Amino acid sequence: MTYTLVLLRHGESEWNAKNLFTGWVDVALSEKGTEEAKRGGQLLTEAGVSPDVVHTSLLRRAITTANLALDAADRHWIPVKRSWRLNERHYGALQGKNKKQTLEEFGEEQFMLWRRSYDVPPPEIELGSEFSQDADPRYADAPVVRTECLKDVLERALPYWESEVVPDLKAGKTVLVAAHGNSLRALVKHLDGISDEDIAGLNIPTGIPLLYELDENLVPVTKGGRYLDPEAAAEAAAAVANQGR
Amino acid sequence: MTYTLVLLRHGESEWNAKNLFTGWVDVALSEKGTEEAKRGGQLLTEAGVSPDVVHTSLLRRAITTANLALDAADRHWIPVKRSWRLNERHYGALQGKNKKQTLEEFGEEQFMLWRRSYDVPPPEIELGSEFSQDADPRYADAPVVRTECLKDVLERALPYWESEVVPDLKAGKTVLVAAHGNSLRALVKHLDGISDEDIAGLNIPTGIPLLYELDENLVPVTKGGRYLDPEAAAEAAAAVANQGR
Repeated sequence: MTYTLVLLRHGESEWNAKNLFTGWVDVALSEKGTEEAKRGGQLLTEAGVSPDVVHTSLLRRAITTANLALDAADRHWIPVKRSWRLNERHYGALQGKNKKQTLEEFGEEQFMLWRRSYDVPPPEIELGSEFSQDADPRYADAPVVRTECLKDVLERALPYWESEVVPDLKAGKTVLVAAHGNSLRALVKHLDGISDEDIAGLNIPTGIPLLYELDENLVPVTKGGRYLDPEAAAEAAAAVANQGR
Repeated sequence: MTYTLVLLRHGESEWNAKNLFTGWVDVALSEKGTEEAKRGGQLLTEAGVSPDVVHTSLLRRAITTANLALDAADRHWIPVKRSWRLNERHYGALQGKNKKQTLEEFGEEQFMLWRRSYDVPPPEIELGSEFSQDADPRYADAPVVRTECLKDVLERALPYWESEVVPDLKAGKTVLVAAHGNSLRALVKHLDGISDEDIAGLNIPTGIPLLYELDENLVPVTKGGRYLDPEAAAEAAAAVANQGR
């Protein structure tokens, strides 16, 4: 008896394509991202993986990815649950800034610390500024978030994992989580027991379903799970690691 | 204190465009239908109507319409609930048949009886046949449906209305129901107290949000509600009435 979990990072967004820090800014998928999402659904079908329920963040790029992938997999009709706790990491004052310019302005060391350290958040965003979400009605029931490190993401995602995702898994449902680079890294860190140091080297590619079979203690049967298109995943992960160069 | 309900019939589907009886066959939106859905969302924005929760059928054309309209209205992140009880009327053995050919084969009287009578269902569909849904996993928890008249639709939709939609309304939420010509006619018949005879003359146009303010007894403040684009609604309703001609 195992539980089946599928993680899906949204396809390329308009700001991924422009190399901007996005975080909680609610940008749309690019055309490439739209195609990636549909391809993700085809990969589910080809692998015979049929999600029974989907969990998404409150951000358009993850929601649209879930919608398109599930439609392509003929599972558009399954129940949907959403939470801000699955959102991308809030990038603080870096939201809306170009990654390459930020690298040049602050230097490689500071840049990599903000991008990949476990517990150093970027500077806080100014409330009421263009790329802050403090007045967004969708977060009315959430705390005001001004910046986050990966540790913060893990700490706000885990309560949702425990209270909403785990019960669906234990009910025998195949669960799809459609979310973001860093909220999925946080879940993978938790599932695979990755150290605070080693998580820095883990990149999750866009649009390729990552399948986990979990044992009765919710421990992955195969550490790291299995991408439904392993070759494309390896190529894409390498490309993500080079962002900002 | 009033409650706010928005009804939205899906945009044109691929089979609407081909003039086929669709029922529970899960066809996609046409390009025109896709544009109608987005326009529906723009109309919500222009009217300042912000849905807090959406209810859809289990059929792709209503689900996609809801997704596109809510995205256009910047409300893609709201909670979603789905039920087969909001599905289009099951058209029985007519599913997949051309409306014009059916009119010619069976004559005007029988054709109009099947299309517009309150309590005469078309012949039952053969189980296991191409356009039957009896083996579809999405209906695992529903009874097997082989044909329906509008009365049948009303009787299976009302329990969902009472148990799922009304509590959302009474919680003060603006509720969007994205569904179908006949499941929405059934709800409108119930809300406006339309007789079994008069409901035959009521057509609901595609893609134009129909706004109801309901009093504390869930009675419409204005009978028939208000279309957010009244001119387009009047034109479209006339066109629907002429289908099969």
